[in-house]
Order: sequence, then C-alpha cells, then structure tokens
Amino acid sequence: MLSFDRNFAFESSAAQHTIMENAFAVLQEEHKSGKIGYYELPTASRALLDAIDPALLDDTAITDIAVVGIGGSSLGLKAIDSLLCGAREHTRKLHFFENSDPRTITATMARLTREKTYFIIISKSGSTIETTSIFKTLIAHFDLKLDGADRHRVMTITDSGSSLDKFAAHYGLASFHIPLNVGGRFSILSAVGVVPLALAGYNVASILAGAQAFLERFWARGEEHLLEKACYFYEKSRAYSINVLFSYADSLDNLTKWYVQLWGESLGKIDPFESHVGLTPIGIIGSVDQHSFLQLLIEGPRDKTVTFIQVEDFNNALTVPNITLPHIEKTDFINGKSFTTLINAQCDATRQSLIQTGLSVDTIRWDSISESNIGATLIYFELLTSLVGAMLMVNTYDQPGVELGKTILNKTFQA
Amino acid sequence: MLSFDRNFAFESSAAQHTIMENAFAVLQEEHKSGKIGYYELPTASRALLDAIDPALLDDTAITDIAVVGIGGSSLGLKAIDSLLCGAREHTRKLHFFENSDPRTITATMARLTREKTYFIIISKSGSTIETTSIFKTLIAHFDLKLDGADRHRVMTITDSGSSLDKFAAHYGLASFHIPLNVGGRFSILSAVGVVPLALAGYNVASILAGAQAFLERFWARGEEHLLEKACYFYEKSRAYSINVLFSYADSLDNLTKWYVQLWGESLGKIDPFESHVGLTPIGIIGSVDQHSFLQLLIEGPRDKTVTFIQVEDFNNALTVPNITLPHIEKTDFINGKSFTTLINAQCDATRQSLIQTGLSVDTIRWDSISESNIGATLIYFELLTSLVGAMLMVNTYDQPGVELGKTILNKTFQA
Repeated sequence: MLSFDRNFAFESSAAQHTIMENAFAVLQEEHKSGKIGYYELPTASRALLDAIDPALLDDTAITDIAVVGIGGSSLGLKAIDSLLCGAREHTRKLHFFENSDPRTITATMARLTREKTYFIIISKSGSTIETTSIFKTLIAHFDLKLDGADRHRVMTITDSGSSLDKFAAHYGLASFHIPLNVGGRFSILSAVGVVPLALAGYNVASILAGAQAFLERFWARGEEHLLEKACYFYEKSRAYSINVLFSYADSLDNLTKWYVQLWGESLGKIDPFESHVGLTPIGIIGSVDQHSFLQLLIEGPRDKTVTFIQVEDFNNALTVPNITLPHIEKTDFINGKSFTTLINAQCDATRQSLIQTGLSVDTIRWDSISESNIGATLIYFELLTSLVGAMLMVNTYDQPGVELGKTILNKTFQA
Repeated sequence: MLSFDRNFAFESSAAQHTIMENAFAVLQEEHKSGKIGYYELPTASRALLDAIDPALLDDTAITDIAVVGIGGSSLGLKAIDSLLCGAREHTRKLHFFENSDPRTITATMARLTREKTYFIIISKSGSTIETTSIFKTLIAHFDLKLDGADRHRVMTITDSGSSLDKFAAHYGLASFHIPLNVGGRFSILSAVGVVPLALAGYNVASILAGAQAFLERFWARGEEHLLEKACYFYEKSRAYSINVLFSYADSLDNLTKWYVQLWGESLGKIDPFESHVGLTPIGIIGSVDQHSFLQLLIEGPRDKTVTFIQVEDFNNALTVPNITLPHIEKTDFINGKSFTTLINAQCDATRQSLIQTGLSVDTIRWDSISESNIGATLIYFELLTSLVGAMLMVNTYDQPGVELGKTILNKTFQA
C-alpha cells in the first residue's frame, strides 16, 4: 500500500486544468497509438515469466547471476535487488558489471566461480561499448565456449534485430527482446528487469501486479494527485529547478539513482522554442544525509522541492537497548524504542522542519518494503516523468545529447 | 601528483583581484588567529600516529574495525577507505555504522565477530542520536563489558570535554580528541580520520604529507588556480548554481559524497543581507553516469559547472581481449586496449562534448590512486570551500539550519 501527501497548495485553476488534461491526453495517445510501450509492460510482461526455461529456474548448480549492462540496463535491476535482497529469501545472487573501471571489473570477476555462474548480457542497442567490452573480458576470463558447452550459461536481452540479437541467434543462445517502443530508462518492467529478477528467485509477478494496479487507477482518474504534482513541478520548473528525492532507507539508494536517470535524461532537453529546459534530480538518503544536505535545503537557495519516500514498517524489530551510559543520558529518550520508530521520527521531524521553512514537500509512504510497493513506485515515477515531459513539450523518450560524446570517442580510436 | 586544467576564461580584473586577495586574507586570518583549525591538521596530526598504542596496531587478533559515526564522522573515512582498500594491502577491514536504518545495522552486525572486532565511536558533539543509539545496540548485541575485559576493545574520538569524552574517562577507554576549532566536515585529517585509518593499516603519513605539500604551495601562492576557480564559482553562483563533481572511478564515489557534504553544508547559508545563498553539489561517476546524467548536462538548463576527477593510471592491466564477436564487430576498435585507456578516453570525450556545448569545465588529474593525491585533493576542496564561503560572506563552518529538525525530534519523544 502506498499513500501520498503534500504540503503545497494546488488550486486547480482553469489554466491548470487545461494543462493537466492535455498532458493526460498525450499519455493516452502515446499508449493507444502504441508509440510508447512502457504502459503495456505490467500486463504484457507476465508472459515472460512463463517463457523462462523451467530447468534454468530450477538449476541448483547456478548460484550466481552476472548481469552485464549499464544505465537503463542495470539501474532498475539494482534498485529492486537492493530493496528485496535483505528482506526476502532468494535463491541466487546478482552481480553487476556496468562501469569501465578496471578495478571494479577485476574485483567483481574475482567473486564469481565459472561453474556456478549464469551470464546475462543486456543492451538495448546491442553495441554499448562498456557492455561488449566487459562481455569479451568475461568470455576470455572464464574461457566461455559459446559454440559448445557454455552456450547454455549465457543469455542476451536486447532489441529484436540488434547486433547482439543476431549474435545470440548465431550461437543459439537464450534471448529475450525489449519491445522496440520501450526506451532503456523505461524498461525495468520489460525483460530487462523481469527475466534476471525471476532467475534470481524474486517474486516478479507481485511487482508487476503492484505496477498494474497503480496504472489502472491512474487511467481511471483515481490518482489525480499525480497530475497535480506534475502540473506543480512543471509550473515551478524555473523557480524550483531541482527535485530532491529524500528516501529514508539505505536500501532505497539504488532506487534514487534509477530516479535520477529517469528524471534527468527524460526532461533535460531542448524544447520546441529552442530553450534548454529540464529539472535536475538529486537523490539522498535519510537519516544519514540530514548530516550532509539538510543545511543546504533549509538555508540555501529556494530552488528545490523535496519528495520523501518513507517506510512505515521495516519488518525488523531491532530496538535501542534500555542502557544508560554515564554522561550520555541526554539521548536516553530513545531507549526502548525501535530503530523503525527512530528513523520514522527523524523523517517526520525533517519534513516538518522543511515545511516550517517554507519548502514544497510531498511524501510517498510505503507501509512496508514489498514487491507491490516497488512496482507501484516505479510506475508512479514513470508516469510523473511522462506527464511533466508532455507539459514541457519535450521528447521525453530520446537522449540526443549523449551522441556527441560517442562520436568523439569513436574518432579517438579510429584516427 | 595532481595537475589541473580548465576551459573557462578568467581575466583577473582589478575587481576580481580584490575579491581573491580579500578571501585569501580571510583564510590567513582564520589560520593565524587559530579560529579555524583544519589548516594545522596536516602537520599537527602526525603526532597522533605516535600516540596510538603500538600493541593495538600489532594485535593480530583484531581483524575488523567497527566505526560508529555519521556525517563528518564517517564520510571522509569511507572516502579514503574506498580508494585504498582495493589498491593497497591493509591488515584490517573497516565497517561503518552510520544510518538509523534497522536493516543495515542488523546486516553490518552480522558480519562482525566479537573477538576479532575493535570498536571506534566517533561523535564531535558526543551526543549524536544515531551514534549513541547504535553504540548501545552494539554493547547489548556483543555483550561488551566496558568495566571489565572489553574496555580495551572500545575507543572514542570526540571533542575534549564532550559527554562522550566524559563517558570514556569514566571507563578509562582509549580516547582521541578532535580539536575544538575543527568542524565535523573539515575533520578528516584530524583523529577522526587518522586514527581509524592507521589502525586499519593504511599509510596515513603519506596522506598527511600530500595534504601538507598542497597546503604549503597554496599559502606560498603557488596554487593560484584555486583562487581563480573560487572567484569564478562565486561570481557565477547564481547563473551556475549547481556544481557537479564527475569522477571517473567507482572508488571515488564516496569522495564525491564527502564533497557533497562539505560544499552543501558549508555554503548553503543565509548571508549578512538575509539572502539564501549557496551552491548545490552533485556527485556522479563515470563512465556509468554518462548513461544517466550527461543528457541533462548537455541539453538541460545552463545552470551547472562540471569538475572532473580523472585517474590516469589505475595500476590495473585489464585489457579488452582481441575477440571478434559475430555481428558485434562495430566495437572491435577497442580490442587490445586496456580498460584504463577506455575509461580515460570516455572521460576525455565527455569533457570535450561538454566544452563544445559551452559548459564551464575543469579537471583535477590524478597520475594514480595514491595516498598523497588523496590528501592533496581533500585539502584542495576544503580550501576551495573556505575561499568561496569567504567570498559569499557566510559562516562556512556552522550548520544552524539542522537545529530545527533536532528540536522537533526531541519534542516528539519528550511530549
């Protein structure tokens, strides 16, 4: 169960009504025309769960899964894995290869054993430089025989017809496709997320169901607060150009990174009037970042909104012992209280201090860390991004700005 | 060895000259008056290395160190540990307890064995709620007898005369002091950093020496680029209100978090004219965040500067194998090149694309991941922060904005 609240006033004037209805219509059109595919994933991806080879799901010899992918091909997976790996029994451990940092690649390889590992190569385009370079390194390091015995320990997830897809067909590897109308940063509920998470042993059906339930309420106009928030963020996009996601749980750290990509890359665009528009996302974690970022929020420039994610029940009974330490009696007021109570009280107090200071604040409240809350939150942010993108009149789904760097990189090596 | 370059023009006009000289004079005065203590740490902290009990340094029964601290009492330590733990032999592993998230505390405790662990409790004020609550939890969980056999496995690092200091004296625990004129976020080269890192087996003398060498050059006016950068960031603080630190190494991730606290909490202030001033720090990692944040930098609002940290030699020979994968020949141009070459070429290409787009960009170039480069970079950012704070005419060293939340929290439990 998710619930939502906010402190900022929203009048729903006639002008705002028009902005919201137009944006809603844009999303409907994206959906119905089939131009944008992520709206279909919560239902369409259920079929993927049946398409995974049951023998692979049950293979007890496989204890580790190496995922090679970067950006949209890793951030959502890491977000979900971080949230569920401590809280649920799962059968296999996920390891991520994403950066071109040689020390990280070396260290991650050292944690894997050839015989126990299954390799999943994820790239929408099929030719991401980090992904293919690391894949080659793994082939050499683990001496993978793709034309022989190791064919069954490698899977690809990519666009149909991509170079990586053709490669998989060449060797007869297991392969799943990302729908062509689903962009990388909107792909977590496609095969990109569903297949590796299912292979790791997570309850993916519940994630999809949580996303689906939220999506259905949104289309049925049962989540109007989302339209209002999008309109508010859009109208204030110059005054409050920075949107902070302040999540009160360590395990939400990777979800904030997923949000940063989704929000930053989708909305940071040149609009039809040649203006540089966009909103800058920042992800921070409570309570720890009360000690690093809160001062700036309270006394710094008034250019930020703050959205909290608050977890009401951590399903963990750890309690501050009833111990009095001589000379440190001042903090005894927390004795006998659970850490869940403490972190929630810290979140409440921080929010209250921001509200008293005059900031625009809203909260996404999770009753617990659950698959359905994760699914609903992912679709919540995707819809919010699409709505604000429609209001800003940008192409929410492309990323033309990153091409220049790729061109320069290619020239470096081909000179 | 560090080297520096930038693309932004700086004229050094008469007005700018005055701004820089005034700020330099402020720092000199802070130093000479003894008001601000971090300028002394690179030399003063050398004595700490001799003050650590040699028997404790040599005790082979201790393999793990639990550090309990948050904010300024953990961020710098984590930054240095992340950079050196993969690259150097060290004798003990550091574990950090900082957040009030119960799942993290439970998981970190599960990694520790009572007999092999040494506990260091760090709090400048002595009464940080997370720190004292976690400390009590560790006492109960590991059944630590502070009035008996376990007295020798617990150390405190705190202000002289603080509640935690009195507590340590009560039980006769080992205790180190943070100079009263050194604030938490400027304390990494005090006992806060020096003692735990030395106990972990790191070469702390070289970190201090690197910091000291940079500091001496700065006072001798041999690092004028730092004054110029401070002046540029100050003059552009409204136009370019966001300062991105884009570090090309996974192991620099915690250093970017340390920078975020230092920059955000020091400069986000109400100035003497009652204006909310400050600069918003963002830390990102290359190459991975080329796939999440670069689009926003290139096409989004022109409100950001970008500082790169680039590592020329990772001391790791990992090379992309000379393998051609059918249908993926397009990326074969990187075959036979090292990942060090790849990540540096990616950094170069990204910087070039930002420069061509018209952003203000500078680079801190490390020849390698070394203790002296770490020390120099820490003092570089501290001096830069002090200079910009002086130019903005704020109190760089306090954090009054976080008090409101603490007051509300206390009322919650004392109601």
